[in-house]
Amino acid sequence: MVVRGDVYDRNCPTRVIANHATGQWGSLVLGKLLDDGGGTKRFSELRREVSGISEKMLAQTLQALERDGLVHREVHPVIPPRVDYSLTALGTHAAKQISELFGWIEENLPSFMAAQDEYDARRAEKV
Amino acid sequence: MVVRGDVYDRNCPTRVIANHATGQWGSLVLGKLLDDGGGTKRFSELRREVSGISEKMLAQTLQALERDGLVHREVHPVIPPRVDYSLTALGTHAAKQISELFGWIEENLPSFMAAQDEYDARRAEKV
Repeated sequence: MVVRGDVYDRNCPTRVIANHATGQWGSLVLGKLLDDGGGTKRFSELRREVSGISEKMLAQTLQALERDGLVHREVHPVIPPRVDYSLTALGTHAAKQISELFGWIEENLPSFMAAQDEYDARRAEKV
Repeated sequence: MVVRGDVYDRNCPTRVIANHATGQWGSLVLGKLLDDGGGTKRFSELRREVSGISEKMLAQTLQALERDGLVHREVHPVIPPRVDYSLTALGTHAAKQISELFGWIEENLPSFMAAQDEYDARRAEKV
């Protein structure tokens, strides 16, 4: 039997996994973990590098990504305890695709802003 | 001057555009608009094909994607009015990248489920 998901089906588990990977915070955390060649990062580094994320959201995001097998969490038995986060093989693949999309959005900012200006001007005309 | 965004900066407009394109509903709507070779789709088709989306969320999602220049909205002056949605060139590029990621998630469902089972078993052990 071939098991294949369908993200367009609200009852398919891939819908939730896709949300974790591409969602507002999940996508940025994956992208940042890919930086610097996919090394490890501490919670505090991620918190600083993904601007706007709260401590609670980062913790929830990392937990969801770890459960899906996208992020590896390593607790080092030292005092005080040190926790490192890194991408798994699955996570690296997803992060590369997301990062590529983000890079393309960043490069095309002028096109997006032009579209937004045009849209706003059209709406203003109608009023 | 080269204008380039930074999605990791909460104040950069690309952060919002990235959220629209990769967010829960935006990503699914873009993906469905790419289906069938990127033809046009009606509101009701999208509503049916992206299971779980409400009428209000679909309207908001399409409006955000249109404003960003990812989706084109064409109103045909017939009675009753007919509205068609399609991808712009920008939208097609974004939709292809998202669709590729979704396809990969769908194919790898067994790996994700194995990771989730392992995670849950580890947590159960600790309790």
